[in-house]
Amino acid sequence: MIFGIIQVALRIILIITTLSLVVGLSYGEDMDGALFKQAQKLFSPLPKVMESEQNPVTPEKVKLGKMLFYESRISIDGTVSCAKCHPISLYGADGLRMSVGNHCKANPRNAPTVFNAASQISQHWIGNRTSVEDQAKQSVIGPPAFGMVKYEDVEKRLKEYEEYVALFKEAFPADKDPVTVDNFAKAIGAFERTLLTPSPFDSYLKGNEKALTAAQKNGLKTFIETGCTGCHSGTYVGGQMYQKFGLVEPYWKYTKSEKVDEGRYAITKSEADKYVFKVPILRNVEKTSPYFHDGSVDTLEATVTIMAKVQLGRDVSSKQAAEMADFLKSLTGKISEDAITVPLLPSLE
Amino acid sequence: MIFGIIQVALRIILIITTLSLVVGLSYGEDMDGALFKQAQKLFSPLPKVMESEQNPVTPEKVKLGKMLFYESRISIDGTVSCAKCHPISLYGADGLRMSVGNHCKANPRNAPTVFNAASQISQHWIGNRTSVEDQAKQSVIGPPAFGMVKYEDVEKRLKEYEEYVALFKEAFPADKDPVTVDNFAKAIGAFERTLLTPSPFDSYLKGNEKALTAAQKNGLKTFIETGCTGCHSGTYVGGQMYQKFGLVEPYWKYTKSEKVDEGRYAITKSEADKYVFKVPILRNVEKTSPYFHDGSVDTLEATVTIMAKVQLGRDVSSKQAAEMADFLKSLTGKISEDAITVPLLPSLE
Repeated sequence: MIFGIIQVALRIILIITTLSLVVGLSYGEDMDGALFKQAQKLFSPLPKVMESEQNPVTPEKVKLGKMLFYESRISIDGTVSCAKCHPISLYGADGLRMSVGNHCKANPRNAPTVFNAASQISQHWIGNRTSVEDQAKQSVIGPPAFGMVKYEDVEKRLKEYEEYVALFKEAFPADKDPVTVDNFAKAIGAFERTLLTPSPFDSYLKGNEKALTAAQKNGLKTFIETGCTGCHSGTYVGGQMYQKFGLVEPYWKYTKSEKVDEGRYAITKSEADKYVFKVPILRNVEKTSPYFHDGSVDTLEATVTIMAKVQLGRDVSSKQAAEMADFLKSLTGKISEDAITVPLLPSLE
Repeated sequence: MIFGIIQVALRIILIITTLSLVVGLSYGEDMDGALFKQAQKLFSPLPKVMESEQNPVTPEKVKLGKMLFYESRISIDGTVSCAKCHPISLYGADGLRMSVGNHCKANPRNAPTVFNAASQISQHWIGNRTSVEDQAKQSVIGPPAFGMVKYEDVEKRLKEYEEYVALFKEAFPADKDPVTVDNFAKAIGAFERTLLTPSPFDSYLKGNEKALTAAQKNGLKTFIETGCTGCHSGTYVGGQMYQKFGLVEPYWKYTKSEKVDEGRYAITKSEADKYVFKVPILRNVEKTSPYFHDGSVDTLEATVTIMAKVQLGRDVSSKQAAEMADFLKSLTGKISEDAITVPLLPSLE
């Protein structure tokens, strides 16, 4: 009798334990599974190359473009190359609040990273460059950038280097006179279209649920629930739309902005574009401090807190901010072996 | 009879031909052999590392030093790193007549390459830095360089990065408080002491006589015969003595110098040091145009012609100048796989 009772009691304990384990596990799996499905709907992993119909990526263009990316001798004072504001060592940004161009001219905004950048709707914070090629082309004559006066002068300088002339021929074999600024821009664009940094988040999106830590999954959940994915989604976690900075409250109430930047209003002169900027991509955001168009905030936690406040009217706790920062660190990717090596530039003959 | 005569004639022709070939060859071999012996007396191949008793090279220091070499966030305006004036893509020089520092401040002289530089008698054109470590240390507070006011401010900035704090500890395990500017300088110095570029000329000096082309051997001969090796000799083809620039005639009569630089007189105030500079090393000189302390001349041919004139009172022909330039191109070396890759720098936590 006493054994019977003990046996029954043990069975009940066993059943309860088993049930609770099953419920617990399946609850955890459901949670994870639901988050994973949601993530797959909102985001997608990086491609191998950011293709362009207007500028097909070829190895010859990429090789030349990488060299031109480092070429400072085509700027008015010999100090500006693409790599000046987009050094690879700082993940393609420059660590400055606002970039500095030829003769130390101040640029109006913070340098966005050149990694994973080519498939955005446009380039620059206010979208006044249609593509990476357009950006490269306009930069050489941009007064606060390379500062050259005429495209012809850039072409003339490039032609001084026999090796460049030969490489332009190889990259643009159909062109009679291939050393042009348009081809310069295409070569640099082609190089930039290869600058992709696959990250743990890509691995996660492809099905490896262990690629994110538990803390990062929490952060992803918070990131989605807070509403960040309203703008920061897709392959690049941003870069696909324009949005007013300060939808709910003026951004400058919370940032350390020294002046109010009216964003796209500067180009469209439409009231609707006041304080409107391109939504930045968040890949490698951990590595590209300081943040915002004016680099006015240094840390990721402060940045997500301000964004939740001024865009979504939400007060996130410091725990939630830390969780989201944790998630954002899963977007830090691997720079390819090619991108991490420096090209050697030609000398005058 | 007629056959006998023909046979004898043929034999004579054969003997003459053979003799002339042998004489020609042995004459050529003697010439080559003599040149080779002379070269081995005058020069020596690069070591693996440019050692220093004061700063032994360790992998930990080199790793940290390479990162610090690229670190711009420790300069007053965030734009200056060692790599700014010594980019690897331009063989460790910057392609400018004179370097440009923080807030676009003009530096007084042309940036010498950082490759193969550490074993010179001193650093800088006028020898006012005792070593690469001294150069690195003084640069961070150099007004036209990094422009920081106090060493403590540099240390404070470095300490903001947890990764740097850890790497300083690894590199200087015996130090209680390792994040110091002295250790910063030692780490960068250690990295620079690995920056060696073995070239075809090293291969030649080690016994591979085919490493130089016939034209380069001619150039080497001309280089020795003209008297260039009076100063440009040793492992680094220079870098071991001070010399008046313009021994025979004032240099500014031939260079395109915009002003007269009095050289070491600026530091010693001794008349004997007027126009005296450190003899620059010539390794990779092909790749480090423009030339001279003020970068006033662009081509190698013009440079050797001016040097022969003002230092040795000799008028070299354009053929001789081209030959010497040919030889100097054999000093263009291979940059190591480590030096050609960019380090990724820490971000703020």
